[in-house]
Amino acid sequence: MSVQYIGKQSICFNNPPKILCGGCVAGEKESQGPLGQGQYGNTFDEVVMDPMCGKNSWEEAESELQYMASNIAIEKSGLKKENIRYIFAGDLLGQNMATSFGVGSLGIPLFGLYGACSTMGESLCLAAMTISGGFASHAMAVASSHFASAEKTFRFPLGYGSQRKMSATWTVTGSGAVILSDTSGFAKITAITPGKIIDYDFKDKENMGAAMAPAAADTIYHHLTDLGIKANHYDKIITGDLGYVGQTILIDLLKEKDIDISKVHMDCGIEIFDKETQDTHSGGSGCGCSAVVLCGHLFNLLKRKKLKKILFIPTGALLSPSSSNEGLSIPSIAHAVAIEADS
Amino acid sequence: MSVQYIGKQSICFNNPPKILCGGCVAGEKESQGPLGQGQYGNTFDEVVMDPMCGKNSWEEAESELQYMASNIAIEKSGLKKENIRYIFAGDLLGQNMATSFGVGSLGIPLFGLYGACSTMGESLCLAAMTISGGFASHAMAVASSHFASAEKTFRFPLGYGSQRKMSATWTVTGSGAVILSDTSGFAKITAITPGKIIDYDFKDKENMGAAMAPAAADTIYHHLTDLGIKANHYDKIITGDLGYVGQTILIDLLKEKDIDISKVHMDCGIEIFDKETQDTHSGGSGCGCSAVVLCGHLFNLLKRKKLKKILFIPTGALLSPSSSNEGLSIPSIAHAVAIEADS
Repeated sequence: MSVQYIGKQSICFNNPPKILCGGCVAGEKESQGPLGQGQYGNTFDEVVMDPMCGKNSWEEAESELQYMASNIAIEKSGLKKENIRYIFAGDLLGQNMATSFGVGSLGIPLFGLYGACSTMGESLCLAAMTISGGFASHAMAVASSHFASAEKTFRFPLGYGSQRKMSATWTVTGSGAVILSDTSGFAKITAITPGKIIDYDFKDKENMGAAMAPAAADTIYHHLTDLGIKANHYDKIITGDLGYVGQTILIDLLKEKDIDISKVHMDCGIEIFDKETQDTHSGGSGCGCSAVVLCGHLFNLLKRKKLKKILFIPTGALLSPSSSNEGLSIPSIAHAVAIEADS
Repeated sequence: MSVQYIGKQSICFNNPPKILCGGCVAGEKESQGPLGQGQYGNTFDEVVMDPMCGKNSWEEAESELQYMASNIAIEKSGLKKENIRYIFAGDLLGQNMATSFGVGSLGIPLFGLYGACSTMGESLCLAAMTISGGFASHAMAVASSHFASAEKTFRFPLGYGSQRKMSATWTVTGSGAVILSDTSGFAKITAITPGKIIDYDFKDKENMGAAMAPAAADTIYHHLTDLGIKANHYDKIITGDLGYVGQTILIDLLKEKDIDISKVHMDCGIEIFDKETQDTHSGGSGCGCSAVVLCGHLFNLLKRKKLKKILFIPTGALLSPSSSNEGLSIPSIAHAVAIEADS
């Protein structure tokens, strides 16, 4: 064992884990957006037109999305599910309900995670450490969200027809699963920067982008500082679901630290929906947002070498229905994962 | 990097991480039990007589317990908090509310976990992999629960004065924090067996012991099989919070596989309350239950060499208020951590 940590909070892998494959499933609305039909064609492995996925509740539907995405990834990998040693997975629901009923039935040892919309970053960090540390030859990272289960949990029942603020985002219905390997893949995870909680005492749950931007700024700042690199080291620095409002704040916050990411910044929440036609206000959000954009669109670009080095930073707003109702702030967190296409 | 995994789901560390110290805080009722006053004296580092911990809500009180336990552990370690590279933490509340508002303010990178009452096992597994893999020199594992925040979440508001079934357990008010180190400690983690979800389609949320016993049995079985050892390899095999009902089922289930743990089994939920005088029915439960028993009582016994080898298996019932209300089963999970006193 040799020391692999660097700076304040980053890890550079001596033995970078490989990305073997990903699987993703998205809902109807996502399929009608730029990543479902547009210049890139359909970037999702599967599209589910029934929002209930043939189940009895929104939560069970979300579980089904996780199960489907995981099975697609396993099928693509050519492995048997028994070869996936550990799963790292989470969702937005209380007590990780979509995960427990989703990937539970695969019969693979599970680490349940809660990082809100940062979950795909958290799960990739832990799966990468697991592979690089020699604790498994294959591990899977999974995250999901569902528009209806999230609205029910954090906002209002859909039947109320509540109006949404222009700063609000639209929770993506979808799930992504990534299989990491110690031997082969089309890309590798070279470094990670797990984030710490940042709390600016911001309380508007209809403006998650503003709540999460400071956490993204902090993690990006520490990542670049720890590794001694500039923003242009990466072809793209890709946040999870800051949306239009959060993007502006993130760029401004980093400018205060003399870091300019404006030319390389991309946000999964901005990419997934069409601003003009889809009525999603500030953009997409949810654990599933960065998960499906990564496993579909971004993996495609890495495979085709259209992107060679990216920093992927899913962002999470750690509010709960109780914390909102009790008038507390929205603590946020962001985990960064540096990915390089195989040369 | 060399392969450290063994059998179906276990890891044996080439470089066993050390347990540097633990910190624990418990509530008034816990302080009146066998581990607060009895043959072992007071095994808790601190006892909080005010169930609100001076805060405005049960959730904030639970956050305060996590903050206190973490600070006690950090103080005992002689480290500065900046030296703790990562925290692995979770609780029972929706969206990990106690954790986000509890250890968030420490400013240490955080991996939020959801494993219900198995959280202390999950966090120790991940912290151990992190240290052993060379990804940090110090990491902290934290878990908490609070009687009132848990009752409010999973059962009825306390004011209703609802009657409890005899198979029900009493959620422990408390938090435990363990600091692992790559260099020094009074004990070491030699192996782990992360668990998979086991679901027997059991639905009675007032009988968590029965729901979780099959998960404990599965993890213990695989741990012993993977490592090729017998139950009597350990001085004690210690489950988290099966209580009296779950203990009976666990012993029976393992007997069916020709494994007899009856002579070495201990359950934190049975240890923490007095059956005759404290009216806690089947015993104690909650993430805090196994956390405070480990950080207080068990660490004391390991330090005094009264115990030399233990297998610690916190057990979690992965139900949520939604899954219960929607009539779903209670999937369960258990993670095993093998601990040896320094010889």
